[in-house]
Amino acid sequence: MSGGLDSSTLLAYAKSRGYECHALSFDYGQRHQVELNSAKKIAQHFSVISHNIMHINMNSIGGSALTDPSINVPTDGINNLEIPVTYVPARNTIFLSYALALAEVVSASDIFIGVNAVDYSGYPDCRHEYIAAFETMANLATKKAIDGFPIKIQTPLIDLTKADIIHMGLNLGVDYNLTVSCYQANSEGEACGVCDSCRLRKQGFKEANLEDPTRYFNEI
Amino acid sequence: MSGGLDSSTLLAYAKSRGYECHALSFDYGQRHQVELNSAKKIAQHFSVISHNIMHINMNSIGGSALTDPSINVPTDGINNLEIPVTYVPARNTIFLSYALALAEVVSASDIFIGVNAVDYSGYPDCRHEYIAAFETMANLATKKAIDGFPIKIQTPLIDLTKADIIHMGLNLGVDYNLTVSCYQANSEGEACGVCDSCRLRKQGFKEANLEDPTRYFNEI
Repeated sequence: MSGGLDSSTLLAYAKSRGYECHALSFDYGQRHQVELNSAKKIAQHFSVISHNIMHINMNSIGGSALTDPSINVPTDGINNLEIPVTYVPARNTIFLSYALALAEVVSASDIFIGVNAVDYSGYPDCRHEYIAAFETMANLATKKAIDGFPIKIQTPLIDLTKADIIHMGLNLGVDYNLTVSCYQANSEGEACGVCDSCRLRKQGFKEANLEDPTRYFNEI
Repeated sequence: MSGGLDSSTLLAYAKSRGYECHALSFDYGQRHQVELNSAKKIAQHFSVISHNIMHINMNSIGGSALTDPSINVPTDGINNLEIPVTYVPARNTIFLSYALALAEVVSASDIFIGVNAVDYSGYPDCRHEYIAAFETMANLATKKAIDGFPIKIQTPLIDLTKADIIHMGLNLGVDYNLTVSCYQANSEGEACGVCDSCRLRKQGFKEANLEDPTRYFNEI
Protein backbone atom coordinates (compact mmCIF):
# COMPACT_ATOMS: atom_id res chain seq x y z
CA MET A 1 0.00 0.00 0.00
CA SER A 2 1.59 3.21 -1.17
CA GLY A 3 -1.14 5.51 0.10
CA GLY A 4 -2.00 6.35 -3.50
CA LEU A 5 -5.14 5.97 -5.52
CA ASP A 6 -4.52 2.47 -6.90
CA SER A 7 -3.49 0.61 -3.75
CA SER A 8 -6.29 2.25 -1.74
CA THR A 9 -8.85 1.09 -4.28
CA LEU A 10 -7.24 -2.33 -4.26
CA LEU A 11 -7.64 -2.71 -0.49
CA ALA A 12 -11.29 -1.66 -0.75
CA TYR A 13 -11.77 -4.25 -3.49
CA ALA A 14 -10.14 -7.09 -1.53
CA LYS A 15 -12.25 -6.26 1.53
CA SER A 16 -15.41 -6.17 -0.59
CA ARG A 17 -14.61 -9.70 -1.80
CA GLY A 18 -14.50 -10.93 1.80
CA TYR A 19 -10.73 -11.13 2.30
CA GLU A 20 -9.21 -10.49 5.73
CA CYS A 21 -6.25 -8.29 4.88
CA HIS A 22 -2.72 -7.79 6.12
CA ALA A 23 -1.43 -4.52 4.66
CA LEU A 24 2.20 -4.03 3.66
CA SER A 25 3.83 -0.67 2.90
CA PHE A 26 7.42 0.20 2.04
CA ASP A 27 9.52 3.09 3.16
CA TYR A 28 12.22 2.80 0.52
CA GLY A 29 13.72 6.26 0.34
CA GLN A 30 11.02 7.59 -1.94
CA ARG A 31 10.99 11.34 -2.05
CA HIS A 32 8.34 11.99 0.55
CA GLN A 33 6.91 10.42 3.68
CA VAL A 34 3.46 11.90 3.36
CA GLU A 35 2.22 8.95 1.33
CA LEU A 36 2.98 6.56 4.19
CA ASN A 37 0.76 8.64 6.45
CA SER A 38 -1.98 8.31 3.85
CA ALA A 39 -1.39 4.55 3.76
CA LYS A 40 -1.82 4.35 7.55
CA LYS A 41 -5.12 6.25 7.47
CA ILE A 42 -6.51 4.11 4.67
CA ALA A 43 -5.39 0.84 6.27
CA GLN A 44 -7.12 1.93 9.47
CA HIS A 45 -10.27 2.97 7.60
CA PHE A 46 -10.55 -0.50 6.08
CA SER A 47 -9.80 -2.33 9.37
CA VAL A 48 -6.84 -4.42 8.27
CA ILE A 49 -5.62 -7.19 10.61
CA SER A 50 -2.09 -5.77 10.53
CA HIS A 51 -0.20 -3.02 8.73
CA ASN A 52 3.52 -3.67 8.36
CA ILE A 53 5.68 -0.78 7.14
CA MET A 54 8.97 -2.26 5.96
CA HIS A 55 11.93 0.10 5.98
CA ILE A 56 14.08 -0.92 3.06
CA ASN A 57 17.06 0.93 1.76
CA MET A 58 16.96 1.25 -2.01
CA ASN A 59 19.00 4.46 -2.06
CA SER A 60 22.20 2.47 -1.74
CA ILE A 61 21.28 0.81 -5.03
CA GLY A 62 19.97 3.97 -6.68
CA GLY A 63 19.26 4.20 -10.38
CA SER A 64 15.90 5.98 -10.15
CA ALA A 65 14.57 9.52 -9.84
CA LEU A 66 12.41 8.23 -6.97
CA THR A 67 15.33 7.08 -4.82
CA ASP A 68 18.36 9.00 -6.07
CA PRO A 69 18.30 12.72 -5.16
CA SER A 70 20.72 13.51 -8.01
CA ILE A 71 18.12 12.52 -10.64
CA ASN A 72 15.24 14.96 -11.16
CA VAL A 73 11.62 13.83 -11.35
CA PRO A 74 10.47 14.67 -14.90
CA THR A 75 7.58 17.14 -15.08
CA ASP A 76 7.31 17.76 -18.82
CA GLY A 77 4.66 15.17 -19.63
CA ILE A 78 4.42 11.47 -20.29
CA ASN A 79 6.35 9.86 -23.12
CA ASN A 80 4.96 6.39 -23.66
CA LEU A 81 7.81 5.27 -25.87
CA GLU A 82 10.44 5.04 -23.16
CA ILE A 83 10.73 3.60 -19.68
CA PRO A 84 10.95 6.72 -17.49
CA VAL A 85 13.63 7.63 -14.94
CA THR A 86 11.03 7.22 -12.18
CA TYR A 87 11.31 3.48 -12.82
CA VAL A 88 12.87 1.90 -9.69
CA PRO A 89 14.95 -1.15 -10.65
CA ALA A 90 13.20 -4.38 -9.64
CA ARG A 91 10.84 -2.52 -7.31
CA ASN A 92 7.77 -4.68 -7.72
CA THR A 93 9.94 -7.80 -7.52
CA ILE A 94 11.33 -6.63 -4.18
CA PHE A 95 7.87 -5.62 -2.93
CA LEU A 96 6.27 -8.91 -3.99
CA SER A 97 9.14 -10.88 -2.42
CA TYR A 98 8.43 -9.34 0.97
CA ALA A 99 4.73 -9.90 0.43
CA LEU A 100 5.51 -13.54 -0.30
CA ALA A 101 7.45 -13.84 2.97
CA LEU A 102 4.57 -12.27 4.89
CA ALA A 103 2.03 -14.45 3.06
CA GLU A 104 3.94 -17.51 4.15
CA VAL A 105 4.15 -16.42 7.79
CA VAL A 106 0.45 -15.47 8.09
CA SER A 107 -0.71 -18.33 5.80
CA ALA A 108 -2.31 -15.98 3.30
CA SER A 109 -3.89 -17.49 0.20
CA ASP A 110 -3.57 -14.43 -2.03
CA ILE A 111 -1.33 -11.43 -2.60
CA PHE A 112 -3.02 -8.35 -4.05
CA ILE A 113 -0.93 -5.79 -5.90
CA GLY A 114 -2.25 -2.65 -7.55
CA VAL A 115 -0.24 -2.78 -10.77
CA ASN A 116 -1.78 -1.33 -13.87
CA ALA A 117 -0.82 -2.13 -17.44
CA VAL A 118 -2.92 0.65 -19.03
CA ASP A 119 -1.61 3.77 -17.33
CA TYR A 120 1.56 2.01 -16.35
CA SER A 121 3.99 4.69 -17.45
CA GLY A 122 6.11 2.06 -19.21
CA TYR A 123 7.21 0.00 -16.19
CA PRO A 124 8.10 -3.59 -17.23
CA ASP A 125 7.06 -5.03 -13.87
CA CYS A 126 3.41 -3.98 -14.27
CA ARG A 127 2.58 -6.37 -17.10
CA HIS A 128 0.49 -9.59 -17.10
CA GLU A 129 3.39 -11.80 -18.19
CA TYR A 130 5.60 -10.49 -15.40
CA ILE A 131 2.95 -11.16 -12.75
CA ALA A 132 2.33 -14.68 -14.10
CA ALA A 133 6.07 -15.42 -14.00
CA PHE A 134 6.31 -14.13 -10.42
CA GLU A 135 3.44 -16.40 -9.36
CA THR A 136 5.11 -19.44 -10.95
CA MET A 137 8.36 -18.64 -9.17
CA ALA A 138 6.59 -17.96 -5.86
CA ASN A 139 5.00 -21.38 -5.92
CA LEU A 140 8.42 -23.01 -6.22
CA ALA A 141 9.99 -20.75 -3.59
CA THR A 142 8.00 -21.46 -0.46
CA LYS A 143 7.40 -24.20 2.06
CA LYS A 144 3.71 -23.27 2.00
CA ALA A 145 3.36 -23.98 -1.72
CA ILE A 146 5.30 -27.24 -1.41
CA ASP A 147 2.95 -28.26 1.39
CA GLY A 148 0.05 -27.90 -1.07
CA PHE A 149 -1.08 -24.33 -0.40
CA PRO A 150 -0.13 -22.33 -3.49
CA ILE A 151 -0.28 -18.57 -3.53
CA LYS A 152 -2.26 -16.54 -6.05
CA ILE A 153 -1.10 -13.07 -7.14
CA GLN A 154 -4.21 -10.97 -7.76
CA THR A 155 -4.09 -7.85 -9.93
CA PRO A 156 -7.71 -6.71 -10.29
CA LEU A 157 -6.68 -3.23 -11.52
CA ILE A 158 -4.27 -4.39 -14.21
CA ASP A 159 -6.59 -3.78 -17.17
CA LEU A 160 -8.54 -0.80 -15.82
CA THR A 161 -8.09 2.82 -16.85
CA LYS A 162 -7.51 5.37 -14.10
CA ALA A 163 -11.12 6.52 -14.56
CA ASP A 164 -12.34 2.91 -14.11
CA ILE A 165 -10.30 2.61 -10.92
CA ILE A 166 -11.73 5.85 -9.51
CA HIS A 167 -15.30 4.72 -10.26
CA MET A 168 -14.62 1.34 -8.62
CA GLY A 169 -13.11 3.00 -5.55
CA LEU A 170 -15.96 5.47 -5.09
CA ASN A 171 -18.45 2.59 -5.26
CA LEU A 172 -16.46 0.81 -2.55
CA GLY A 173 -16.23 3.81 -0.22
CA VAL A 174 -12.68 5.01 -0.83
CA ASP A 175 -12.14 8.59 0.32
CA TYR A 176 -9.69 9.89 -2.29
CA ASN A 177 -9.05 12.89 -0.07
CA LEU A 178 -6.92 10.56 2.03
CA THR A 179 -4.77 9.40 -0.88
CA VAL A 180 -1.60 10.95 -2.29
CA SER A 181 -0.25 9.96 -5.72
CA CYS A 182 2.39 12.61 -6.42
CA TYR A 183 6.04 11.59 -6.83
CA GLN A 184 7.12 14.78 -5.05
CA ALA A 185 4.30 15.83 -2.71
CA ASN A 186 5.25 18.38 -0.09
CA SER A 187 5.07 17.81 3.66
CA GLU A 188 1.49 19.16 3.76
CA GLY A 189 0.42 16.41 1.34
CA GLU A 190 0.02 18.85 -1.55
CA ALA A 191 0.84 17.44 -4.98
CA CYS A 192 3.01 18.99 -7.70
CA GLY A 193 0.42 18.50 -10.45
CA VAL A 194 3.06 18.00 -13.15
CA CYS A 195 4.85 14.69 -12.53
CA ASP A 196 3.68 11.60 -14.44
CA SER A 197 1.75 10.29 -11.45
CA CYS A 198 -0.11 13.61 -10.97
CA ARG A 199 -0.87 13.80 -14.69
CA LEU A 200 -2.33 10.28 -14.72
CA ARG A 201 -4.42 11.01 -11.64
CA LYS A 202 -5.73 14.33 -13.01
CA GLN A 203 -6.60 12.73 -16.31
CA GLY A 204 -8.38 9.89 -14.48
CA PHE A 205 -10.68 12.25 -12.58
CA LYS A 206 -11.30 14.20 -15.77
CA GLU A 207 -12.23 11.08 -17.75
CA ALA A 208 -14.41 9.89 -14.88
CA ASN A 209 -16.17 13.27 -14.96
CA LEU A 210 -15.46 13.74 -11.28
CA GLU A 211 -13.92 16.53 -9.30
CA ASP A 212 -10.31 15.81 -8.32
CA PRO A 213 -10.03 16.31 -4.53
CA THR A 214 -6.22 16.59 -4.69
CA ARG A 215 -4.61 19.77 -3.39
CA TYR A 216 -1.97 20.95 -5.83
CA PHE A 217 0.79 23.42 -5.02
CA ASN A 218 1.49 24.07 -8.71
CA GLU A 219 -1.64 25.39 -10.38
CA ILE A 220 -1.28 24.45 -14.04
CA MET B 1 27.76 -13.11 0.38
CA SER B 2 27.03 -14.46 3.80
CA GLY B 3 30.65 -14.84 4.88
CA GLY B 4 30.17 -18.60 4.89
CA LEU B 5 31.88 -21.39 3.04
CA ASP B 6 29.59 -21.53 0.00
CA SER B 7 29.39 -17.84 -0.93
CA SER B 8 33.14 -17.39 -0.38
CA THR B 9 33.87 -20.25 -2.76
CA LEU B 10 31.34 -18.79 -5.19
CA LEU B 11 33.11 -15.43 -5.30
CA ALA B 12 36.46 -17.17 -5.88
CA TYR B 13 34.84 -19.15 -8.73
CA ALA B 14 33.32 -16.08 -10.41
CA LYS B 15 36.64 -14.24 -10.22
CA SER B 16 38.48 -17.27 -11.67
CA ARG B 17 36.09 -17.17 -14.63
CA GLY B 18 37.05 -13.57 -15.34
CA TYR B 19 34.02 -11.78 -13.89
CA GLU B 20 34.38 -8.34 -12.35
CA CYS B 21 32.26 -8.66 -9.22
CA HIS B 22 29.96 -6.47 -7.17
CA ALA B 23 29.37 -8.20 -3.83
CA LEU B 24 26.06 -8.00 -1.99
CA SER B 25 25.50 -9.02 1.64
CA PHE B 26 22.41 -8.80 3.82
CA ASP B 27 22.07 -7.83 7.43
CA TYR B 28 18.60 -9.25 8.02
CA GLY B 29 18.47 -9.80 11.74
CA GLN B 30 20.23 -13.14 11.58
CA ARG B 31 21.53 -14.22 14.94
CA HIS B 32 25.04 -12.92 14.70
CA GLN B 33 26.99 -10.15 13.01
CA VAL B 34 30.28 -11.98 12.89
CA GLU B 35 29.49 -13.47 9.51
CA LEU B 36 29.22 -10.00 7.96
CA ASN B 37 32.74 -9.24 9.14
CA SER B 38 33.87 -12.43 7.43
CA ALA B 39 32.05 -11.35 4.28
CA LYS B 40 33.90 -8.02 4.31
CA LYS B 41 37.30 -9.68 4.65
CA ILE B 42 36.59 -12.14 1.85
CA ALA B 43 35.20 -9.47 -0.48
CA GLN B 44 38.35 -7.44 0.12
CA HIS B 45 40.60 -10.46 -0.43
CA PHE B 46 39.02 -11.05 -3.85
CA SER B 47 39.14 -7.34 -4.85
CA VAL B 48 35.46 -6.79 -5.60
CA ILE B 49 34.44 -3.55 -7.37
CA SER B 50 31.93 -2.78 -4.63
CA HIS B 51 30.51 -4.48 -1.55
CA ASN B 52 27.01 -3.40 -0.63
CA ILE B 53 25.66 -4.52 2.75
CA MET B 54 21.88 -4.11 2.65
CA HIS B 55 20.19 -3.70 6.03
CA ILE B 56 16.82 -5.35 5.68
CA ASN B 57 14.39 -5.99 8.45
CA MET B 58 13.02 -9.51 8.28
CA ASN B 59 12.36 -9.71 12.02
CA SER B 60 9.11 -7.83 11.58
CA ILE B 61 7.98 -10.69 9.34
CA GLY B 62 9.49 -13.43 11.50
CA GLY B 63 8.64 -17.09 11.02
CA SER B 64 12.19 -18.47 11.27
CA ALA B 65 14.64 -19.55 13.95
CA LEU B 66 17.21 -17.37 12.19
CA THR B 67 15.24 -14.13 12.57
CA ASP B 68 12.82 -14.73 15.46
CA PRO B 69 14.52 -14.90 18.88
CA SER B 70 11.56 -16.86 20.30
CA ILE B 71 12.34 -19.86 18.05
CA ASN B 72 15.41 -21.93 19.02
CA VAL B 73 17.98 -23.04 16.45
CA PRO B 74 17.78 -26.86 16.38
CA THR B 75 20.99 -28.64 17.41
CA ASP B 76 19.89 -32.28 17.48
CA GLY B 77 20.91 -33.25 13.96
CA ILE B 78 19.57 -32.95 10.44
CA ASN B 79 16.23 -34.45 9.50
CA ASN B 80 16.01 -34.50 5.72
CA LEU B 81 12.30 -35.24 5.65
CA GLU B 82 11.11 -31.84 6.84
CA ILE B 83 11.81 -28.22 6.00
CA PRO B 84 13.61 -26.97 9.14
CA VAL B 85 12.69 -23.98 11.32
CA THR B 86 15.89 -22.26 10.17
CA TYR B 87 14.12 -21.78 6.82
CA VAL B 88 13.55 -18.01 6.38
CA PRO B 89 10.35 -17.39 4.38
CA ALA B 90 11.15 -16.23 0.84
CA ARG B 91 14.74 -15.40 1.79
CA ASN B 92 16.44 -16.26 -1.49
CA THR B 93 13.63 -14.54 -3.38
CA ILE B 94 14.22 -11.34 -1.40
CA PHE B 95 18.02 -11.64 -1.80
CA LEU B 96 17.79 -12.29 -5.54
CA SER B 97 15.36 -9.39 -5.96
CA TYR B 98 17.87 -6.95 -4.51
CA ALA B 99 20.61 -8.56 -6.60
CA LEU B 100 18.41 -8.01 -9.64
CA ALA B 101 18.01 -4.33 -8.78
CA LEU B 102 21.77 -3.96 -8.35
CA ALA B 103 22.43 -5.91 -11.56
CA GLU B 104 20.23 -3.49 -13.42
CA VAL B 105 21.93 -0.41 -11.97
CA VAL B 106 25.50 -1.63 -12.60
CA SER B 107 24.58 -3.36 -15.90
CA ALA B 108 25.68 -6.77 -14.70
CA SER B 109 25.25 -9.71 -17.05
CA ASP B 110 25.07 -12.40 -14.37
CA ILE B 111 23.96 -12.95 -10.78
CA PHE B 112 25.84 -15.63 -8.86
CA ILE B 113 24.17 -17.26 -5.86
CA GLY B 114 25.67 -20.03 -3.74
CA VAL B 115 22.60 -22.23 -3.37
CA ASN B 116 23.12 -25.92 -3.02
CA ALA B 117 20.57 -28.64 -3.71
CA VAL B 118 22.63 -31.50 -2.25
CA ASP B 119 23.29 -30.34 1.29
CA TYR B 120 20.39 -27.93 1.12
CA SER B 121 18.80 -28.75 4.46
CA GLY B 122 15.40 -28.97 2.76
CA TYR B 123 15.02 -25.34 1.66
CA PRO B 124 12.62 -25.04 -1.33
CA ASP B 125 14.40 -21.97 -2.72
CA CYS B 126 17.67 -23.83 -3.31
CA ARG B 127 16.38 -26.06 -6.12
CA HIS B 128 17.07 -25.95 -9.88
CA GLU B 129 13.42 -25.39 -10.79
CA TYR B 130 13.13 -22.44 -8.42
CA ILE B 131 16.26 -20.76 -9.85
CA ALA B 132 15.03 -21.29 -13.43
CA ALA B 133 11.65 -19.73 -12.56
CA PHE B 134 13.35 -16.76 -10.92
CA GLU B 135 15.46 -16.18 -14.03
CA THR B 136 12.38 -16.27 -16.27
CA MET B 137 10.61 -13.77 -14.01
CA ALA B 138 13.71 -11.54 -13.78
CA ASN B 139 13.89 -11.26 -17.55
CA LEU B 140 10.31 -9.95 -17.64
CA ALA B 141 10.82 -7.62 -14.68
CA THR B 142 13.56 -5.29 -15.80
CA LYS B 143 14.20 -2.49 -18.26
CA LYS B 144 17.60 -4.04 -18.96
CA ALA B 145 16.12 -7.35 -20.14
CA ILE B 146 13.51 -5.55 -22.26
CA ASP B 147 16.32 -3.55 -23.86
CA GLY B 148 17.88 -6.85 -24.98
CA PHE B 149 20.31 -7.56 -22.14
CA PRO B 150 18.88 -10.52 -20.26
CA ILE B 151 20.28 -11.60 -16.92
CA LYS B 152 21.59 -15.07 -16.16
CA ILE B 153 21.33 -16.57 -12.66
CA GLN B 154 24.42 -18.71 -12.11
CA THR B 155 24.48 -21.44 -9.46
CA PRO B 156 27.78 -23.28 -9.96
CA LEU B 157 27.58 -24.96 -6.53
CA ILE B 158 24.05 -26.28 -6.86
CA ASP B 159 24.99 -29.91 -7.58
CA LEU B 160 28.20 -30.11 -5.56
CA THR B 161 28.65 -31.83 -2.21
CA LYS B 162 30.14 -29.81 0.61
CA ALA B 163 33.40 -31.74 0.11
CA ASP B 164 33.39 -30.80 -3.61
CA ILE B 165 32.88 -27.14 -2.69
CA ILE B 166 35.76 -27.20 -0.21
CA HIS B 167 38.08 -28.78 -2.79
CA MET B 168 37.04 -26.18 -5.37
CA GLY B 169 37.60 -23.32 -2.94
CA LEU B 170 41.03 -24.53 -1.84
CA ASN B 171 42.10 -24.78 -5.49
CA LEU B 172 40.91 -21.20 -5.98
CA GLY B 173 42.72 -19.79 -2.95
CA VAL B 174 39.87 -19.43 -0.45
CA ASP B 175 41.10 -19.13 3.13
CA TYR B 176 38.39 -20.99 5.05
CA ASN B 177 39.80 -19.56 8.26
CA LEU B 178 38.06 -16.34 7.24
CA THR B 179 34.65 -17.95 6.78
CA VAL B 180 31.90 -18.56 9.34
CA SER B 181 29.03 -20.96 8.65
CA CYS B 182 27.42 -21.38 12.09
CA TYR B 183 23.79 -20.26 12.65
CA GLN B 184 24.72 -19.11 16.15
CA ALA B 185 28.43 -18.23 16.16
CA ASN B 186 29.59 -16.18 19.13
CA SER B 187 31.10 -12.71 18.94
CA GLU B 188 34.62 -14.18 18.67
CA GLY B 189 33.59 -16.02 15.51
CA GLU B 190 33.54 -19.41 17.24
CA ALA B 191 30.96 -21.86 15.95
CA CYS B 192 28.53 -23.99 17.96
CA GLY B 193 29.40 -27.23 16.17
CA VAL B 194 25.89 -28.64 16.52
CA CYS B 195 23.52 -26.60 14.32
CA ASP B 196 22.67 -27.95 10.85
CA SER B 197 25.09 -25.54 9.19
CA CYS B 198 27.99 -26.61 11.46
CA ARG B 199 27.15 -30.28 10.94
CA LEU B 200 27.19 -29.88 7.15
CA ARG B 201 30.48 -28.00 7.26
CA LYS B 202 32.14 -30.53 9.56
CA GLN B 203 30.98 -33.41 7.42
CA GLY B 204 32.27 -31.61 4.31
CA PHE B 205 35.79 -31.27 5.67
CA LYS B 206 35.68 -34.89 6.86
CA GLU B 207 34.58 -36.18 3.45
CA ALA B 208 37.20 -34.01 1.77
CA ASN B 209 39.84 -35.56 4.07
CA LEU B 210 40.89 -32.10 5.18
CA GLU B 211 41.36 -30.49 8.54
CA ASP B 212 38.45 -28.21 9.50
CA PRO B 213 39.95 -24.81 10.45
CA THR B 214 36.74 -23.77 12.27
CA ARG B 215 37.03 -22.86 15.96
CA TYR B 216 34.18 -24.49 17.89
CA PHE B 217 33.02 -23.45 21.35
CA ASN B 218 31.14 -26.74 21.84
CA GLU B 219 33.55 -29.63 21.54
CA ILE B 220 31.43 -32.57 20.41
